[in-house]
Amino acid sequence: MTDAISPTEPGAHDALPSTRAQCEALDAADPLAPLRALFALPAGIVYLDGNSLGALPAATPARIADAVERQWGHDLIRSWNTAGWVELPQRVGAKIAALVGARADEVLAADATSVNLFKVLSAALKMRDGRGIIVSERGNFPTDLYIAQGLADQLGRGHTLRLVERDQLPAAIDESVAVVMLTQVDYRTGSRLDMNEVTAAAHRAGALMLWDLAHSAGAFPVDLNAARADFAVGCGYKYLNGGPGAPAFLFVAQRHQAAFSQPLSGWMGHAAPFAFETGYRPADGVARYLCGTPPVLSMVALDAGLDTLLAADAYGGLAALWRKSRQLTALFAARAQALCARHGLRCVTPMDGDRRGSQVSFTLPDGQQAYGVVQALIARGVIGDFRAPDILRFGFAPMYLRHVDAWDAAERLAAVLESGDWRSSEFLARAAVT
Amino acid sequence: MTDAISPTEPGAHDALPSTRAQCEALDAADPLAPLRALFALPAGIVYLDGNSLGALPAATPARIADAVERQWGHDLIRSWNTAGWVELPQRVGAKIAALVGARADEVLAADATSVNLFKVLSAALKMRDGRGIIVSERGNFPTDLYIAQGLADQLGRGHTLRLVERDQLPAAIDESVAVVMLTQVDYRTGSRLDMNEVTAAAHRAGALMLWDLAHSAGAFPVDLNAARADFAVGCGYKYLNGGPGAPAFLFVAQRHQAAFSQPLSGWMGHAAPFAFETGYRPADGVARYLCGTPPVLSMVALDAGLDTLLAADAYGGLAALWRKSRQLTALFAARAQALCARHGLRCVTPMDGDRRGSQVSFTLPDGQQAYGVVQALIARGVIGDFRAPDILRFGFAPMYLRHVDAWDAAERLAAVLESGDWRSSEFLARAAVT
Repeated sequence: MTDAISPTEPGAHDALPSTRAQCEALDAADPLAPLRALFALPAGIVYLDGNSLGALPAATPARIADAVERQWGHDLIRSWNTAGWVELPQRVGAKIAALVGARADEVLAADATSVNLFKVLSAALKMRDGRGIIVSERGNFPTDLYIAQGLADQLGRGHTLRLVERDQLPAAIDESVAVVMLTQVDYRTGSRLDMNEVTAAAHRAGALMLWDLAHSAGAFPVDLNAARADFAVGCGYKYLNGGPGAPAFLFVAQRHQAAFSQPLSGWMGHAAPFAFETGYRPADGVARYLCGTPPVLSMVALDAGLDTLLAADAYGGLAALWRKSRQLTALFAARAQALCARHGLRCVTPMDGDRRGSQVSFTLPDGQQAYGVVQALIARGVIGDFRAPDILRFGFAPMYLRHVDAWDAAERLAAVLESGDWRSSEFLARAAVT
Repeated sequence: MTDAISPTEPGAHDALPSTRAQCEALDAADPLAPLRALFALPAGIVYLDGNSLGALPAATPARIADAVERQWGHDLIRSWNTAGWVELPQRVGAKIAALVGARADEVLAADATSVNLFKVLSAALKMRDGRGIIVSERGNFPTDLYIAQGLADQLGRGHTLRLVERDQLPAAIDESVAVVMLTQVDYRTGSRLDMNEVTAAAHRAGALMLWDLAHSAGAFPVDLNAARADFAVGCGYKYLNGGPGAPAFLFVAQRHQAAFSQPLSGWMGHAAPFAFETGYRPADGVARYLCGTPPVLSMVALDAGLDTLLAADAYGGLAALWRKSRQLTALFAARAQALCARHGLRCVTPMDGDRRGSQVSFTLPDGQQAYGVVQALIARGVIGDFRAPDILRFGFAPMYLRHVDAWDAAERLAAVLESGDWRSSEFLARAAVT
């Protein structure tokens, strides 16, 4: 599922529909249309927040009920073996591997993204002992920066986090750099880094490359091994539809698997967890990134989410989903700007399809306004989210979104701005989780 | 729920029934008997592995289905606020606090036990900078030792894990010790340490005391604050009935909450997670031990498990459960030894009720035999587990176990040993997870 997308591919950016009827016709002719039925979507909602919490796959409730009632309730402890709970991190990891251009034995599902980042960043810094700099973007998702700071402080060996703006990255990656740690798609603007180019720049400087795929995995084709990435982490609850707080994943390139180590050396990453040895002996391969006992129920939900996503393989897989995503995001961006530019709405997502993720973000002249507009839009049935200081963010999961959804969302955004009802105090509630 | 149990309390050790009919009579008169209906137990099974994976509470399937179908499926991202997902770690933590003698704001549910141990051990070592020794038992649960080793290696500042036998603990706790890290109940033998006594010894030496409550929390009254414990961790999937791989918990004494720090400084432990600041500012209090996004579905299952356990408050709470546990374990140990001593079965669990947890463990002369007997016993409907090298382990969760269960389990254990069918190759399958 990792076919490259040509930037000149026909149909990606042209022929945007100019009426709702044309959107309906495109949806009727859409070969991906049957995939929408794989999700349990609430009636009357246009859900543009699948980049924050993916929608519920229709198969998931029964999968979880089986895990709860039969596997846990009836089979009890035996399910660690009979239901394969003990292999869930590897089995689920292998499914994720197919989405990110990795080998099945290079990916593991475990813990939260932040915890996994701590593991792989620890391993990477150890492999580049003697170099002290971690390069990242100032606009990287904050938890990545916080984890790097926490690790650097803990090590107390002078590691420094060098934060730069995106356009300063090439200059910042020099021979002092141990690790370049970047999120491929900016969580606010949706701007996408060129994985091959940045990884090559890191390697030319002798640094290791660590990618956060939070807004990439399951959204468009990613090929970690083609780029020769060293480490990666990513999120299970966005485009993988794994449910709230789903386990995250990590990737370790096969060529590093003999050498690496990591400090969260819990028993599930031991070579023989059930021998109960006093001393730690790391498991072979990616399994040594396991720490504690995996949260089985959340892992089963992630497994079901992945099966749903992989059902798209019969329809052209991620390459086909990504073509549709570009159509939907281009349509929404163009229509929203046509209707709302006079209110100061400005698109901050690159309109070159190869430079963006599966989202469209706008700013408004005033942060308070941006916040209120998102809340008022939710009240009108279009769920996006606000990101400080002034971003309106709309994610497009093409498995369950249609052209009419993009059309209607732009219309309702315009209606909110026209009506001014975003000024109402009812829209000053607390922001949601990314 | 933390009433102390007097070792001389009447009824705890005497008047063991000597016929199955007497067991039935005790069950009929048992004021705790209605609690069994709060669990969905498979027919015909005596489940003596609730210390490894607690049984399914009857209320849990509906709680999870609601979280999946309504909260996730229908309300989608809004449930972070409307269903209170974002406060789950604190809300669930407060329920655990009531079981372990802590204040509601001293306990947090998060991550796996191993990950939490890394956090609190990191904090404790930093608070005792200049001291290099971590004291633990050689027989501590291995993941605790592995995590301590991983952390010491990572810090690279000469920290050493000093492992001793239990009877050498007093001599091992000297002025060089930074942290004493112990599991209160030995996972193999069920032998219990005196929390007050050991904590006081650690403090006399100027060390901090870190307890692992994996086999304590929910099994008997624990009072961390009466003992003046500094830090603790524990497990959600044993006596808390939180489901397979349930989130774990951690405790930080209120007096340390202004000072401590920890390296897994993810965004959920930030003072303002949704301000998306570039720099990390720790949240006040125990919340700074949060790292990534919590696994909501597994957290909801843990919440339901705790509500089930807390329903016992109306029946005398943990003090009453613990009285019954001692009766059941005393009955099972006595009956099994009476029937099986001639096969070399030896009880390794202390028969002083205040010196054991809620389990009974035996050894057999040969480890292979012990393994096979546990498997053959499972085939006869009594689920316990084997722990290397030669332990047969039986956990007693008195909310759902009866005197007849203890009686029948001993009878069937004897039948396995009499018949010799444990020698069958079918009983050489893979061991289950603790």
